[in-house]
Amino acid sequence: MTRQFPSRPIPAIGVVVWKGDHVLLIQRGKPPRAGSWSLPGGAQKLGETVFEAAIREVTEETGIQIETLGLIDVIDSIDRDNDSIEYHYTLIDIGARWLSGTPLAADDAIDARWVALDDIGAFDLWSETERIIRLSAHLHGPCRNIPYT
Amino acid sequence: MTRQFPSRPIPAIGVVVWKGDHVLLIQRGKPPRAGSWSLPGGAQKLGETVFEAAIREVTEETGIQIETLGLIDVIDSIDRDNDSIEYHYTLIDIGARWLSGTPLAADDAIDARWVALDDIGAFDLWSETERIIRLSAHLHGPCRNIPYT
Repeated sequence: MTRQFPSRPIPAIGVVVWKGDHVLLIQRGKPPRAGSWSLPGGAQKLGETVFEAAIREVTEETGIQIETLGLIDVIDSIDRDNDSIEYHYTLIDIGARWLSGTPLAADDAIDARWVALDDIGAFDLWSETERIIRLSAHLHGPCRNIPYT
Repeated sequence: MTRQFPSRPIPAIGVVVWKGDHVLLIQRGKPPRAGSWSLPGGAQKLGETVFEAAIREVTEETGIQIETLGLIDVIDSIDRDNDSIEYHYTLIDIGARWLSGTPLAADDAIDARWVALDDIGAFDLWSETERIIRLSAHLHGPCRNIPYT
């Protein structure tokens, strides 16, 4: 099954990796939204769990090692081309924390950097990505003792 | 892409529907786990969100109308046949509440009934299904004012 014009939604993972109050952002190298900043992640492979996929994708795209902390949310990313569905990813967002390594962009990412939570507004993120990062900050990140409102 | 021996994990929905302290269970008509009791649900279709899929699947399998309340958890259901992956569903579990209608089994379900939360132990559910129902009871159901432990 192809990623473009698929026959079913494709399960994919987005990972919010925390290092203190900084979150890992990558610049996307391919569609949808090529060139824009986003979370590391990608399509889940047959036989791997969503948590295994999260660890593999972050290592492939940035070289760092992480530990997963839990589920954040699930979002449907649906892009239409006239009457057809060009892309449909069922995005499973997972919170994680940095264990070791310095981010170096590789694979589908063309840049990777730690960004302070207060500075994510400068990266023109998809509104859903920004919501997921802020929710994760409360569930697993630097704001975990502050209720999410 | 076929459901058996797929090339990627298939996103599918499980729905915990509450009517007071009763939860909707269905008896499965097809694999995996044909004949066993489970949650209503099924594969997500291209172009529909996970919440739209939850509403459609419950109506198709039982005829009732529901309102979705939120995400419960995500589980990988992976069945191996020797060295191959026979089934891999990325199961997105969603909480909901009954709006109208009397459950009548249809489509992939061969029976459907309301079961009191205290009685679900008699239905030999998959351990993960039972965990999801108990978690949903705390998130969206009759135990929502009692912390989940």
